[in-house]
Amino acid sequence: MTGGDKIKVGIVGATGYTGVELLRLLLGHSAVDVVQVTSRSEAGRPVCELFQNLRGHSELLFCEPDQARLAQCDVVFFATPNGTAMNMAPGLLAEGVRIVDLSADFRLKDPELWRRWYGMTHAAPQLLEEAVYGLPEMNRQAIGAARLVANPGCYPTAVQLGFLPLLEAGLADPGSLIADAKSGVSGAGRKAAVGLAFSELDGSFKAYNAAGHRHLPEISQGLRQVLGGGEVELTFVPHLVPMVRGIHATLYARVVADAVDLQALFEARYRAEPFVDVLPAGSHPETRGVRGTNLCRLAVLRPEGRSQAIVLVVIDNLVKGAAGQAVQNMNLMFGLEETLALDGIGMLP
Amino acid sequence: MTGGDKIKVGIVGATGYTGVELLRLLLGHSAVDVVQVTSRSEAGRPVCELFQNLRGHSELLFCEPDQARLAQCDVVFFATPNGTAMNMAPGLLAEGVRIVDLSADFRLKDPELWRRWYGMTHAAPQLLEEAVYGLPEMNRQAIGAARLVANPGCYPTAVQLGFLPLLEAGLADPGSLIADAKSGVSGAGRKAAVGLAFSELDGSFKAYNAAGHRHLPEISQGLRQVLGGGEVELTFVPHLVPMVRGIHATLYARVVADAVDLQALFEARYRAEPFVDVLPAGSHPETRGVRGTNLCRLAVLRPEGRSQAIVLVVIDNLVKGAAGQAVQNMNLMFGLEETLALDGIGMLP
Amino acid sequence: MTGGDKIKVGIVGATGYTGVELLRLLLGHSAVDVVQVTSRSEAGRPVCELFQNLRGHSELLFCEPDQARLAQCDVVFFATPNGTAMNMAPGLLAEGVRIVDLSADFRLKDPELWRRWYGMTHAAPQLLEEAVYGLPEMNRQAIGAARLVANPGCYPTAVQLGFLPLLEAGLADPGSLIADAKSGVSGAGRKAAVGLAFSELDGSFKAYNAAGHRHLPEISQGLRQVLGGGEVELTFVPHLVPMVRGIHATLYARVVADAVDLQALFEARYRAEPFVDVLPAGSHPETRGVRGTNLCRLAVLRPEGRSQAIVLVVIDNLVKGAAGQAVQNMNLMFGLEETLALDGIGMLP
Amino acid sequence: MTGGDKIKVGIVGATGYTGVELLRLLLGHSAVDVVQVTSRSEAGRPVCELFQNLRGHSELLFCEPDQARLAQCDVVFFATPNGTAMNMAPGLLAEGVRIVDLSADFRLKDPELWRRWYGMTHAAPQLLEEAVYGLPEMNRQAIGAARLVANPGCYPTAVQLGFLPLLEAGLADPGSLIADAKSGVSGAGRKAAVGLAFSELDGSFKAYNAAGHRHLPEISQGLRQVLGGGEVELTFVPHLVPMVRGIHATLYARVVADAVDLQALFEARYRAEPFVDVLPAGSHPETRGVRGTNLCRLAVLRPEGRSQAIVLVVIDNLVKGAAGQAVQNMNLMFGLEETLALDGIGMLP
Repeated sequence: MTGGDKIKVGIVGATGYTGVELLRLLLGHSAVDVVQVTSRSEAGRPVCELFQNLRGHSELLFCEPDQARLAQCDVVFFATPNGTAMNMAPGLLAEGVRIVDLSADFRLKDPELWRRWYGMTHAAPQLLEEAVYGLPEMNRQAIGAARLVANPGCYPTAVQLGFLPLLEAGLADPGSLIADAKSGVSGAGRKAAVGLAFSELDGSFKAYNAAGHRHLPEISQGLRQVLGGGEVELTFVPHLVPMVRGIHATLYARVVADAVDLQALFEARYRAEPFVDVLPAGSHPETRGVRGTNLCRLAVLRPEGRSQAIVLVVIDNLVKGAAGQAVQNMNLMFGLEETLALDGIGMLP
Repeated sequence: MTGGDKIKVGIVGATGYTGVELLRLLLGHSAVDVVQVTSRSEAGRPVCELFQNLRGHSELLFCEPDQARLAQCDVVFFATPNGTAMNMAPGLLAEGVRIVDLSADFRLKDPELWRRWYGMTHAAPQLLEEAVYGLPEMNRQAIGAARLVANPGCYPTAVQLGFLPLLEAGLADPGSLIADAKSGVSGAGRKAAVGLAFSELDGSFKAYNAAGHRHLPEISQGLRQVLGGGEVELTFVPHLVPMVRGIHATLYARVVADAVDLQALFEARYRAEPFVDVLPAGSHPETRGVRGTNLCRLAVLRPEGRSQAIVLVVIDNLVKGAAGQAVQNMNLMFGLEETLALDGIGMLP
Repeated sequence: MTGGDKIKVGIVGATGYTGVELLRLLLGHSAVDVVQVTSRSEAGRPVCELFQNLRGHSELLFCEPDQARLAQCDVVFFATPNGTAMNMAPGLLAEGVRIVDLSADFRLKDPELWRRWYGMTHAAPQLLEEAVYGLPEMNRQAIGAARLVANPGCYPTAVQLGFLPLLEAGLADPGSLIADAKSGVSGAGRKAAVGLAFSELDGSFKAYNAAGHRHLPEISQGLRQVLGGGEVELTFVPHLVPMVRGIHATLYARVVADAVDLQALFEARYRAEPFVDVLPAGSHPETRGVRGTNLCRLAVLRPEGRSQAIVLVVIDNLVKGAAGQAVQNMNLMFGLEETLALDGIGMLP
Repeated sequence: MTGGDKIKVGIVGATGYTGVELLRLLLGHSAVDVVQVTSRSEAGRPVCELFQNLRGHSELLFCEPDQARLAQCDVVFFATPNGTAMNMAPGLLAEGVRIVDLSADFRLKDPELWRRWYGMTHAAPQLLEEAVYGLPEMNRQAIGAARLVANPGCYPTAVQLGFLPLLEAGLADPGSLIADAKSGVSGAGRKAAVGLAFSELDGSFKAYNAAGHRHLPEISQGLRQVLGGGEVELTFVPHLVPMVRGIHATLYARVVADAVDLQALFEARYRAEPFVDVLPAGSHPETRGVRGTNLCRLAVLRPEGRSQAIVLVVIDNLVKGAAGQAVQNMNLMFGLEETLALDGIGMLP
């Protein structure tokens, strides 16, 4: 699988869940060759030793991240903590490498807003304008032409795809938006932390960061773009579910028109989208139904006589919410079939 | 433990989770003597054989439900499916037996509304007016004088306790209420059903009955009472969490005044309540923190510059949401210390 | 995907977990065409409505099982309860259809033993001799020539693969074998049963059928075959783990020779096997590492100075323990690449 | 609750799961007053802030551990990592303080063996002889007279109670013992470690330390004591179950006599024990049945015609396996009712 004309891929920071999921998808991708996988802490160790699921599928060793060696790649994925990609991106772009950044470094257009939420001064503000926000359902064309794609956060992917049809159609009061979002624990990353321990989370449920989560400005920016610039008041409360994978966003919006067929609206908006699946009226999506896949599945309803529309949205936070969408973006950037390596059937139960 | 002056208790339909939880609490209650536990399907079998946690704590056998024998009790708890208590209550009340009904039979004041949501004609509409809705934080005095208490549903307990301070103070727009509620699986009861199977639910999350759940009219009735009769528009979406016990309700309401100290409001409202615990500002309650206890724990916040108040509420659905609240009601009905048998410390982790 | 020269596949009884797993694998199999999926209870319903993971991947409807229509298939998989395949197999074989039976009907060679353990008289004892026990690591050649393959049980697959190298080498005392096996809940099937309910199993662990489980005679028969007919005393205790997928068998055997390199023995025995992975010395396999894959992963050790060898074996009970091994058998029966449709990378976490 | 004649209790190192469980039990104990709870890392913080379940039940603050202040206690519990109690015990004993050590410091009689398994030179070898191994079912009388009790490990409690009747009766071949043990994750403590993260453990099962676990010499020492000094060959393999609480030990031993009524033997041995519950023949204990209680529940069987006896044992690792047994030991040391504060009914489900 080292065909000379394959796309040479590097992954920076591949010891987390986003990293191993990128490996799962890219090792099965017929048009790419993963040539470098970096990790400072695990340099020299076989990736299949850290991740038993990769045994027999890869001989790769983790290596130290090195700009010169990474420059030999056609595309580099950053699966790093926030603050790394913004330092390495300018050099790699200058060498002609394309970048898909799965961290938050290039998601916000306003460097001052970024500083406030992420607590660091942005190291490459000159690239913020150029960076394309990698939500194909909104920005497909721009992604196809991009050198640098900012892969969306997991919550923002689910919430934006759910509100999109309502806002585009001018049907929702933009001052009334509520996103009550629930995530599996893998969304918090692969970390040594008491708060992420099995015995702290199993059998329990809670909200967190209710007063303000970093994904809030990202979502608001996206929704404002949809509205063509108007203001949005979004209330966003994330919760932690005792399960590994999956996001369920329950969205509420006050509808400003009567007699609208929301089901038809959503079906029309997403008919051509390969990775958005609108369920029949009356259905409820479940997170396990999209586990391991790049699908966003949703249902819309408006209980009788009410002003509120409700949208139920599920994704796999590590796939459509991270690694899968990153591969989808790469496919678009390189003119490949958009669904390549992303069309596997999910496992159930 | 068969002191002659103890309150003689019967439990009808004790093979479910509410039943075994009633047994756990009442077998440890110093002022009562559980004398009858009925079940048609398990008649003759020791209760401790069905429920291993009761081994060594009770010699009771399940017996057939029999009106004459039940009439020897001072109080009868109904832990039955909907539609049973309404048939047996008139006879027992006539014999001087007091009743705490954990099913939905006496929760709604309007028999027609009850018929619509529960699909049966009400068999004892003449008792609906007399039945007291057993939420002590709203109706303590009436419960103390009641013959027949309708124990609230689990979701309604959490949702009403969360909205109560806001509505009493006239601070929330009653047309803007949203309750996004999440429940552990035990809320669905102890049943043979594919949809409740471990392999169907573990590792997954979903909403259900988003278009209309039976607890919606119950909650609306309660909130209208708080408002003194005005209209309420409540959007209520229940979800299923892969855990056994616990409800987390995330409540949203548009605040109609500025510069209100919601934290102080909630603390004042619940200062004297033995079973409502308001967390310090900035906290997030977790369901495991109240597991096995009769506590309702909540936090209130209003993200800066927003019109929405957010209330986070947790209870144990089987305790404050069912059996514990039933015992609290019994304590009040018999003039006992309200916290009797309900002051144990929860287990963590 | 209806190429005329593809193998036409039917699945009888596809509403269980083995059925949906067969569908996941076979819908992704390049050499087959699934043409019929039967279910009495769900006839007429789209399979993707019952199983959300199949949405977009199949237009099949469940249909009534019908011998004449099934006879148009090249191969029929039985994913039925025990007692169905033995009635339909003779007719289908007579029509030239090949069969992979995932139920227990053709696993035991002795019809009297089958009757004792399964509580039914065998309907097709004349086929027991011909039926090939579908464990490729033992019987690859016979499977390739078989009309009728009895797909092994989940526990027997794990236990036999773990004991095999020791017994073949004559290193284990056959009177000392112990298999302490642990299974995820999906092994019990997709059923409405209180005992399989989430609230009954989550957060708890127990043994079951310790005095005798149906897989015991199946395993013993296999181990005796390995020994060339001698007697075997196997103690087998199955346990239920609060997880959906996976079997972990911990095997104990008294070693009858000193100074044997068990690690080298196991590596040599399984070097050529595509689906058996021997871990390096000192490792512990975990069930999640093989989830969704057809792998059997194992580790062998002998604590210093002890007479006991310990083998740790993991499989995914629905894949190598059922549907995956069935596809592996089909591949062998039709002369296809053995790993076809079975080489996907598992998902982690 | 600060009665002058209550037993003054201190807890050293109370920020772990054993610590919070000790607090749950001791705050509900009518004869003791918890006067000090120490933690270097959390000094000054209210214990109920770290553990939400204690809100409303304790005003205690964590304080720095200080020998002089601890000397004011009547009894000190050590819930510390290994290596702490052995340094503080001599001083406290000299001041007349009694000690229950929940760590491993005083469990092994042989300091050299301790050094090999725990990697430290023992700091108080002179106390090893005096320290009483706190398994009341073996050593009740000695515990009652002890100044220093070494509280048993969780696995050793389950395994020894299961083998005890067989070994005492001389029925088991001591060279044939196998303990296949499974533990919930809380047994690993409250730690920041990737290996204990929810996303690493949920939905998976594995063995660990199969080649040698620290509890092996502790169990062997205990079993040899039962045998009056003979040798024992025990194979012990621990496993991690994706649940928070509970240990299930599955024990195997070759029976050296025929026609023995094992059921009667176990019932007779444990009839007078308040915390050991022998199930009726044919039963299987489940860990949830003893959750939160000090019970050890077990079942014994011998499959027909086999030489192996099987014992199924469950405990709650944090109660009978740690904090509960520690309280039981304290009750004995102070001449209190042995079951004081330990007779609550477990919660199910």
